[in-house]
Amino acid sequence: MFGPLPRHFFLTSGAGDATTGLNAFDAALLDAKVGNTNLIKLSSILPPAAEEIEPYLLLQGSMVPLAYGELVAYEPGAVISASVAVGIPEDPTSAGLIMECSRFGDATICEEACREMVREGMEVIRGLKIREIKSISATHTVKRVGAVFAAVVLCP
Amino acid sequence: MFGPLPRHFFLTSGAGDATTGLNAFDAALLDAKVGNTNLIKLSSILPPAAEEIEPYLLLQGSMVPLAYGELVAYEPGAVISASVAVGIPEDPTSAGLIMECSRFGDATICEEACREMVREGMEVIRGLKIREIKSISATHTVKRVGAVFAAVVLCP
Amino acid sequence: MFGPLPRHFFLTSGAGDATTGLNAFDAALLDAKVGNTNLIKLSSILPPAAEEIEPYLLLQGSMVPLAYGELVAYEPGAVISASVAVGIPEDPTSAGLIMECSRFGDATICEEACREMVREGMEVIRGLKIREIKSISATHTVKRVGAVFAAVVLCP
Repeated sequence: MFGPLPRHFFLTSGAGDATTGLNAFDAALLDAKVGNTNLIKLSSILPPAAEEIEPYLLLQGSMVPLAYGELVAYEPGAVISASVAVGIPEDPTSAGLIMECSRFGDATICEEACREMVREGMEVIRGLKIREIKSISATHTVKRVGAVFAAVVLCP
Repeated sequence: MFGPLPRHFFLTSGAGDATTGLNAFDAALLDAKVGNTNLIKLSSILPPAAEEIEPYLLLQGSMVPLAYGELVAYEPGAVISASVAVGIPEDPTSAGLIMECSRFGDATICEEACREMVREGMEVIRGLKIREIKSISATHTVKRVGAVFAAVVLCP
Repeated sequence: MFGPLPRHFFLTSGAGDATTGLNAFDAALLDAKVGNTNLIKLSSILPPAAEEIEPYLLLQGSMVPLAYGELVAYEPGAVISASVAVGIPEDPTSAGLIMECSRFGDATICEEACREMVREGMEVIRGLKIREIKSISATHTVKRVGAVFAAVVLCP
């Protein structure tokens, strides 16, 4: 209802390290190329027929709708991961589903968990055929305070 | 400031069960008929003179402003509830107030708690006369992972 | 991407006390003069060249993008604080950074922590020169349930 339906999307991810949780998260956003924008977290639906595009430089300060997974950790040496997956339905008039996940450890389990959540949501719960699942992750070994971030960004 | 002031609203609620928290929450949104949209959580004010309408099929993928209560639980057999209440002021130039609540147990206490929070916010804190309080709840007995959701959706 | 880029901003803060956390938070928003609006929380960037204005009466029920820190506490007698700081870059084509913080105790440490996070984010992480850091706090001694709130509100 807010403005027009997003028609494009891209996947991005990043990691950051700093002296505080907010600064680490901000550094992860910069690493993911969305750091100078105002993120608005959505509950995670891909509009029907939205097309994937390459990440591009978003207008600084603009308000950007997206779905994301993130994790901030304060334990130097810890490995942290965040993933996001988006299911593209066979039927272009159906919406797709975005799922996110984060964990201590590498991204393998995390990204597969997102993909499996997309399968359950689209195939089991909605009875939709999936054409493809796209996913992306970030992994980071904490130095001081670390943050990981993985997102599906919705664009005009 | 975002776009025009919402002029209509509806109440809705739902419950879902799945193998993960995100999938259960997604199933609850589908049950509440807002599942294929991008929810944007608001801090909970009903614009002045907004009129109640019947829930309708929202455009898939659209960004939908709303206020909601929700609860996700991982304990099979547990009963969980979420409620939301909205106070309509006597004076149509005043804003209304939306309050949300969730708990383990049935919805009776939960929904009454929301209604009481609306009374405190409108009568005690704002000194406004209330014309009517509308409320809705969802209750669910968890099978695997369960979710309940109750919302006031703001519409154009 | 949501509508036009905000061109103005103001800082505000407030505190409230009530019988529930939601009512206390709502009272703090009213005290900060943003209480009858629908707040949409952003990830905290000041658009380039945005100008500070005096807080003004926002349209009731409108959707208001902002970055904020808040704390709700249930311990009568406790002192709680929330702060927010925004860094204005020397270069008017660069975005500024907003950071928020809250804690038990007075606002001195809290507000300085926000300012330091702005310095780290702008100078260390982005390599930007800061022209000025503006900050604001709220402090409150809890009576029943207390809430504090400090925000940078983005305006058209």
